Amino acid sequence: MKYISLLGATGSIGRQTADVVRQHPGQFKIVAMSLGTNLPQARLFIEEFQPELVSVQFRQDCEALKNEFAGSGIAFTYGDQGLIEAAVHEKANILVNAVIGSVGLNPTLQAIKAKKDIAIANKETLVTAGHIVIEEAKRAGVKLLPVDSEHSAIFQALQGEKEKNIERLVITASGGSFRDRTRAQLQNVTVEEALHHPNWSMGTKITIDSATMMNKGLEVIEAHWLFGLPYEKIDVLLHKESIIHSMVEFHDSSVMAQLGTPDMRVPIQFALTYPDRLPLMNSNRLNLAEIGKLHFADMDFVRYPCLRFAYEAGKSGGSMPTVLNAANEEAVAGFLDGRISFLEIETIIEKALTNHNTIAAPDLDIIQGIDRETRGFVKTLLKQR
Amino acid sequence: MKYISLLGATGSIGRQTADVVRQHPGQFKIVAMSLGTNLPQARLFIEEFQPELVSVQFRQDCEALKNEFAGSGIAFTYGDQGLIEAAVHEKANILVNAVIGSVGLNPTLQAIKAKKDIAIANKETLVTAGHIVIEEAKRAGVKLLPVDSEHSAIFQALQGEKEKNIERLVITASGGSFRDRTRAQLQNVTVEEALHHPNWSMGTKITIDSATMMNKGLEVIEAHWLFGLPYEKIDVLLHKESIIHSMVEFHDSSVMAQLGTPDMRVPIQFALTYPDRLPLMNSNRLNLAEIGKLHFADMDFVRYPCLRFAYEAGKSGGSMPTVLNAANEEAVAGFLDGRISFLEIETIIEKALTNHNTIAAPDLDIIQGIDRETRGFVKTLLKQR
Repeated sequence: MKYISLLGATGSIGRQTADVVRQHPGQFKIVAMSLGTNLPQARLFIEEFQPELVSVQFRQDCEALKNEFAGSGIAFTYGDQGLIEAAVHEKANILVNAVIGSVGLNPTLQAIKAKKDIAIANKETLVTAGHIVIEEAKRAGVKLLPVDSEHSAIFQALQGEKEKNIERLVITASGGSFRDRTRAQLQNVTVEEALHHPNWSMGTKITIDSATMMNKGLEVIEAHWLFGLPYEKIDVLLHKESIIHSMVEFHDSSVMAQLGTPDMRVPIQFALTYPDRLPLMNSNRLNLAEIGKLHFADMDFVRYPCLRFAYEAGKSGGSMPTVLNAANEEAVAGFLDGRISFLEIETIIEKALTNHNTIAAPDLDIIQGIDRETRGFVKTLLKQR
Repeated sequence: MKYISLLGATGSIGRQTADVVRQHPGQFKIVAMSLGTNLPQARLFIEEFQPELVSVQFRQDCEALKNEFAGSGIAFTYGDQGLIEAAVHEKANILVNAVIGSVGLNPTLQAIKAKKDIAIANKETLVTAGHIVIEEAKRAGVKLLPVDSEHSAIFQALQGEKEKNIERLVITASGGSFRDRTRAQLQNVTVEEALHHPNWSMGTKITIDSATMMNKGLEVIEAHWLFGLPYEKIDVLLHKESIIHSMVEFHDSSVMAQLGTPDMRVPIQFALTYPDRLPLMNSNRLNLAEIGKLHFADMDFVRYPCLRFAYEAGKSGGSMPTVLNAANEEAVAGFLDGRISFLEIETIIEKALTNHNTIAAPDLDIIQGIDRETRGFVKTLLKQR
């Protein structure tokens, strides 16, 4: 039996994790969960999964739930401290971290110290502080299990293989909601258009990140840390159908790939069942004959400058990826709020990167300081709009 | 160091095996080899690899080589007995069986009994006597390592995986040299046209088998034995680029695939290095962006009756696959000799299958008797032409 702490339970990944747990009541139990403000969904999950601890974002929601579920034996907590309490719940042996943004970092580190395995859907954690997370995980002897479909694909392709034999990783990219537009055609795109992803139904932040290709950039940095490879050995390939989820080329020129229909429950479940697999019900089986054709094209770094920023920030290393991630989070929020245009996301990130001098091997305090500083810098730019 | 006995050294697979050995002199040594009648190539290989034993098809060639290489310390032998001597050479720890046709069966069985691992490129061995080969290999505790690109792809996709989690195998098929023709357009095709395979450069028998789709049928039966799965869990998918070499779907709906450019040295080398890999020089790296598109289509059992025959013979089991294979070998020989038309290959195989009543669990004597009987039956049909 795996006892799960699920952070971000009511988000897209959280709900799909719940469905995986629902399918395998004999294998998985959610003992702790966190969520933001979606109380209606929270109530359903509490009734269904009967966790021992629930953390919400705000104190008043916490008090309301406490009253509602009085006598149930379920404990309620809230805020940043509540997130950590849920992450390190004593009965949990695996943390599924599906919160969005760098707020996921501290709970991950605390869970690692508490010897929990980590199923990591929160890519900002590794982008912001990859060197610390990897080192702590090694020290604690816990597993870091990828949940992103691309990293799960690579992880699956590496089963039974040796790292020394890897020639390169090939991360596939759908191209996002604007893949068929030129840069000139991106001038006046709306938030609504940007949120219409062709293949995957995901949260808003990651959908915008897909449209700017920053999502792929974050994934490249995440892959660098998860698989311990230099950036020169990580390539991105345009593949608009998102059927091949990513690939590993070995030095004998053999390429191993993981394929499937777009269903995040597959990588979520693999992280939970690893190194075994369990059946997954109601998942659309891959039918390549029905799909007919798969398309591939080279990535265009001029069309997608955010991907270039990510490679450059990754290669600079140190504190630079923290700046990349913080600037991106704030710029995307500014776009979603209607304060800046789609293309200004890129110019703002570039300004933040140019404004920063890399600090090598930053510790957690420095990272958090730079994260705050970058957000302040971007917010000032947004106010000038 | 792996000491190799290489049967069929001067054929297509044999020469490519030699190239793999050439690239890794510290890992591999050919200690015994067999070949048919290609003495010029044989001389080059003898000079280069200095094997301890060489077997040829005919006595006079054996005598000629003995004289030429007198004083070299190299032993020479010939015929069916020579093939077995090479297969069980005392210094060999792995047999690469790359001979063509069911003549490969006996040397394989003898090598298994002599505790050699088997890298099996000779699919007729498993088609003709799969149940015996698998049982003997289990008893002797030796590995059966696939060399066919499709089976190697499945074998690679299964690294680190559990058999119980397999949902189905998907064997890809290029469609062969006549894939763009209707059945009506197959009436008057020539041997030369049939020998022009679009993707792979292979021997004549296997190229004709690809055009009739019998090759894929033999592979389905081979997969049944190698991976221990019922025929209902083995599918064939048309994929004209031959880039995805085959796939495994698991019960969580995840699909693992092995991809690459058409280079038989990759599966040959994997069989020799398993479970590790070694670099392979001068192999064209896969560039999916350059290829641009991959195509997939359902297999058409009306267009390709030989594939239907193979599934039916496989499901009948017992002695029926022996008949399928023997009839096919003789019919293809008849087509290559110009005695029958391309489409008559199919009608002759169907007649041989209809003429036979399945014998369950046949032993080796029965199999060899049925093999001879079937060949006789087909030769009679050919004479009537």
